[in-house]
This record gives sequence, structure tokens and C-alpha cells, in this order.
Amino acid sequence: MNVGGVPYRAIFTEGDDGQVRVIDQTLLPHRFETIGLDSTADAARAIRDMVVRGAPLIGATAAYGVALAMRTDPSDASLDEAIALLASTRPTAVNLRWALDAAGVLLRGLPPSERAQAGHDLAARLCEDDVHRNRRIGEHGLGIFREIANRAGAGGRRRELNVMTHCNAGWLATVDWGTATAPMYLAHDEGLRIHVWVRETRPRFQGAGLTSWELGQHGVPHTLVSDSAAGHLLSRGRVDLVIVGTDRTTAGGDVANKVGTYPLALAARDNGVPFYVAAPSPSIDWTIEDGAGIPIEERDPAEVTRVWGVDDDGVERRVRVVPEGTRAANYAFDVTPKRLVTGLVTERGVCAADGGALRELFARPGSPATGPHGSGVVDRP
Amino acid sequence: MNVGGVPYRAIFTEGDDGQVRVIDQTLLPHRFETIGLDSTADAARAIRDMVVRGAPLIGATAAYGVALAMRTDPSDASLDEAIALLASTRPTAVNLRWALDAAGVLLRGLPPSERAQAGHDLAARLCEDDVHRNRRIGEHGLGIFREIANRAGAGGRRRELNVMTHCNAGWLATVDWGTATAPMYLAHDEGLRIHVWVRETRPRFQGAGLTSWELGQHGVPHTLVSDSAAGHLLSRGRVDLVIVGTDRTTAGGDVANKVGTYPLALAARDNGVPFYVAAPSPSIDWTIEDGAGIPIEERDPAEVTRVWGVDDDGVERRVRVVPEGTRAANYAFDVTPKRLVTGLVTERGVCAADGGALRELFARPGSPATGPHGSGVVDRP
Repeated sequence: MNVGGVPYRAIFTEGDDGQVRVIDQTLLPHRFETIGLDSTADAARAIRDMVVRGAPLIGATAAYGVALAMRTDPSDASLDEAIALLASTRPTAVNLRWALDAAGVLLRGLPPSERAQAGHDLAARLCEDDVHRNRRIGEHGLGIFREIANRAGAGGRRRELNVMTHCNAGWLATVDWGTATAPMYLAHDEGLRIHVWVRETRPRFQGAGLTSWELGQHGVPHTLVSDSAAGHLLSRGRVDLVIVGTDRTTAGGDVANKVGTYPLALAARDNGVPFYVAAPSPSIDWTIEDGAGIPIEERDPAEVTRVWGVDDDGVERRVRVVPEGTRAANYAFDVTPKRLVTGLVTERGVCAADGGALRELFARPGSPATGPHGSGVVDRP
Repeated sequence: MNVGGVPYRAIFTEGDDGQVRVIDQTLLPHRFETIGLDSTADAARAIRDMVVRGAPLIGATAAYGVALAMRTDPSDASLDEAIALLASTRPTAVNLRWALDAAGVLLRGLPPSERAQAGHDLAARLCEDDVHRNRRIGEHGLGIFREIANRAGAGGRRRELNVMTHCNAGWLATVDWGTATAPMYLAHDEGLRIHVWVRETRPRFQGAGLTSWELGQHGVPHTLVSDSAAGHLLSRGRVDLVIVGTDRTTAGGDVANKVGTYPLALAARDNGVPFYVAAPSPSIDWTIEDGAGIPIEERDPAEVTRVWGVDDDGVERRVRVVPEGTRAANYAFDVTPKRLVTGLVTERGVCAADGGALRELFARPGSPATGPHGSGVVDRP
């Protein structure tokens, strides 16, 4: 998507030597800088320090990290070392593990002389697959947007279509397009009048800092609100539909996503507003039916008690907003039961949040995923 | 309630000359300081600059503001001037207007020589009435706490009773006890094991900065969470009951309170957790049945985009958490429909959030309020 009028991806290669570059997301929204990843260590550091974040983008970065090792030393020892280093960065990210497994299997089967090229090609393919998948989600989501706009008399001259989202399921979390944001960009680009309510997404402010930044850079009209304001806006008819991402979708149709998604779904349901989840197939966990048992990550309480930003002089600072010594808890996700989800928007199409419908959708032949037990390499969770 | 082991009220008089003093709430939670109000101008400034906040406390401060004018000049002109000045501070606060009306009516009917004493006595009585009312709410709420603790097997040795609240309906918003917090303090003081989940309450962080401070000072165990975490905690059985305050309760039983209350009530209902509202009679608007039409105040978007706190060196700073120029909206309240409210905890007792039940409760003779059209002076909204 565009940054200051220039199209960017969250990870890309540049120049004659194909240098791998990423946007440094630790500086957003206050500074936009891209940095080169010239070694496996660079890639590992970028993932660990959250220079890149978002499961699809982490996977892509890790794949390039392996390719970089193969450029300098394509031996088995170098390959094992690179995979071990990259795997240690964010131990819970499923896409990371999977990308490394895929790279390991592929490259070990090749003679060292072919590994540099093959590693690079795999990473590039992972990126292209991600972009393709998100673009498809965008097209299916756009169909929903158009339908709701027609029904509500919105999106045209009379008034804009009001979409609400949570956290950052945007292009910054993927290679391009994002998942929940993909239909927003397509809608905006084709001239449908949309306006996005961005929830700030405490405690890490991914909505305030990332989603509002990327929508703003691409020119999509949006308004930031506190997470708590969603209920009021929904109750007063100010929202036509909600669309969010997912960190893990169960085979039964439940959705684990950024904390705050579940109350948002409740408020949407209470006001008859459609609630959609953009769910690329790698987010589907075919081994779990019921989301109630998904363990919820508890993160550093300092994310709740301290806030990072820039002061009036543009100096970055972290300030404490609570009495010293306050005990805080920081749950990163919650589970939205399928009964609150109007539909799952996948790269295969839109389906009910229901185990049967989901299995049927992915049982059909086709690329990239070919079934609930996905033989399509890049789409297996 | 206690501050560092010493009992305090949010407004009090001290010394031989009965100096009026308040806690400077603009410095909380980072500094605890009380300041003297020695003139009407001091009182007006304290209200305008939010040194004091919370409708009951604002009313009490305004009454003392009038009394201070009468000390130096008890003339009609001085009285009119004081009332006009104080009325201009926070034009929307109902308690402020009412306290000034009450003072005006009372003092104009007295000879100037008696006005200083009468003004002081009225302010003192308003304060005592507030404390008494909140204490009664606390007792009625405590009954609910005990009942739920018995039912859940909580509050004893086995495990603590988990109470969740939103914003600051605490003693800092009143003269003492608070409304939603009153049963917490009584429960804690009598040895019932309680633990309070404090929602931080974006954008102004009244939960993070004020409620966690006052609970901490009084020694009530509590844990701060982001507003969005409530749904997760409720869905995992971590909350036994919710109790919040109210800015305006309609005669029909709907509740306008700090934004975020409505989604909290939805999440409580979805998980079968009781949702109570501490509603002192001055919060009841007998002229409105349906809360859906209550206009919702929009405040400065800078409250959403900028955060105030202290850095690691203890220096107070305000930092921006969004891209420069981001448009934000800041809705201060939302409306919780009566169908989601388990009960209203008033100084008269607990009743269903239902026009009939509420009218019946307040139609019974008794003090301080004597009916829906309240003849009890200090309780009329």
C-alpha cells in the first residue's frame, strides 16, 4: 500500500544485489524508516525486537533469514544454525515455525550450490502467496462491503459506509494488503466512499499507532476512538459493519483475536450490525473445535502501566499512568464464539463461522490450500 | 477513606478558622497534595481546573465557595456574584447548579449578618448528606457482596470475591466512600476477602489513575486491566460481580455512565455475571424514561491522542500516541439499557432497573429523598 504516495510492502528486496528491506515498525507512527537485513542475525534481531510483527510477516522475514545464511555459507551446519537462531526469536508464532520447517525440508534436499537461489525463491514465493491470499480476502470482503452499502444506502453520494476494526490486521502485519484492511483498500481505491472507525487497541495501541498510520498514508478516511467508544457508536447507528482479523480460528469457527474483539462482537450483535472476521487459511487451526480452551497469552504488565509516545518537542518518551507499584494484568487475546460471527472471509470465499461450512469450503480442490489438512505447502498452519 | 493510613475526605475543613481544603486531583496518582480554598475564586478555579471532579464533590465545593463569599462580604451583590462565578465553571454539572440554587434560596432569605454561618452550615450539611447516602449505598451493596460470596464460595478462606468496576465512582468523586466503591470499602473493612478488577478507563485513565490509587491507599487488593480485557476475564469465570456508578439514571431505569459501561454490561450478561449500578438518588433524572435519547458529551479529541504520565525520572509529561494530524473522536458516556442491569443500589435499598420499582422505592416516606419528585432538599437532582 502507499506511504506518502509511494507503494510499499512491509518486506521487499531492492537493488541489483536484492537486499532484503523491512519497515522498522518500532518507530511507527512517529518515524518511517526502512532498514536492510543483510544477515541471518539481522533478520533474527528484526523479529525479536518487533521491527517486524504480525504472523505472516514474521514467517516471510524468517524465510529470508534462512536465504541470507545460504548466500554466505550454504553448508548443512550453516542451515541448521540459521534455523535454530530464527526459531528462538518468537517461540509462539506458528507461521515462523512453519516457514522454517518448509525452508529446512526444501534446502536439505538440495546440493549446497543450489541453496542460495532456492532459499531466496522460497522466501519470495511465501511473500507472493501472502499478497495473493490477502488480495483474494479483499475481493471477497469488498463484495460484502458493496452489498451492505447498497442495503444501507451508504458508500455513495448520500453518505459513507462506516466500517469498524480493531487492532492492526493491516498490511503492516502481512506483506501487503493486510487481512481485515484488504477490502478497505480495495473499496477506497475503486471509489466506494468508506470511513473506518479505528479502535485504539490498548494496551499496545496498534490501532492508534499502526492502523491509523497505514490508513492515513493510503488516504482512507478514518477516525480514531477509544476501545470503549465502540458500544456507543454501534448503539447510535454509526457503524454499518465490523471486520477484524484473527490470530487463530478454530476448525469449529471460534476466533481468538486481539483482546477486546469479543466485547466488540457482543456490541455488534446487540445492535444487529454484521461482524466479519478476515481469516486467511493459515490462521485456521484444524486441530481445535472449541475456542473456550485456547490458552491466552499474558504479556508484560508494563504494557498496561506505561505508555510510549512523543512529547511536544518530538522526543520519544515512556510515561507511567498509574500509581507506582500498581499490580496490572495484561491478557493479549480473547475468544469470540462463533455464534457472534456473521461470517469468515477467507481467500476461498465467505462462509459461516461453523465447522461444517469451513470444512466444506476448504475441502474443495483449488489453490493455495487444498483441504482442512491442507496439502498446499504455504497454507498449512 | 485512608490515605497512607490517615482518614481523609475529598473536601474537609481544618483548623480554628475552618479552612476549606480539597485534594488536588490533577496531581493524582503521581502526587498527593491538599490545597486550601480561601476565597470564592479559589473554589471556582478548583472546579474549573478539575482539582475537584465528580458531580457530588463539585456540588459540595460550590456550596463552600458561596459560604466563603459570605465570610468577607455577605451582601446581596456579593452573593449574586459568587453564584454567577461558580455557575460558570462547569455548565453541565447538575449537582453544581442545584447546590448553587439551594444556597441562593436559603441565603437570600436571611439577613446578611447570618449568611456566613448559614452558608457554611449548608455546605457542611451537603457534605454530611453525601457521606450518609454513600454509606447507605455501601451497606446495601455489602448485602449483595455477602450473598454472592456465599453462593460462589468466595470471600472466605477458599478464595476471594472478585468484583469488577469501571472509571472512578470512588470517594474521590464524592465527599467520602464513593458510590460503587462504598461496598468495597465496607467489605474490606469487615474482613470479607475481596479483590477488585479495575478497568483503566480510557481515555482519561480514571480507573488507572484514581480508582487504583484510592483502593491502594486504603489497602483494598486490586488489579488493573485494560478496558478490553473485561470480556476475557468474564468469559473465564474470573469475575463474580460488576458494580459501576452512574452519571444519570433515567426514571425508567436506563443508565448513562462513563463510556465503556454498556459493552461491560453486555459481557457480564453474556456470562451470567450480575451487573449492579450504584445509583444515589441525585443521579436519578425523573423527567426521562428512555436513555436512548440522552445526548452524549463529546470531549476534546486530545484526551484520546495524548497521554499524561510521569517518565522514569518522575517528570510529568504528555505524549502523543498517534500519527500527527490523526482525527479522533471522544465520546465521554454511553447508555446501558435497563435490560442489562441486575439491580440499582440506592441509599433506599436495591431495586430492579425498572421505572415501577424505582418509583415505588422512592415513593415511600423517609429521609433523605421522599419521592420521585423529591421534597428532600439535598437529594433533588
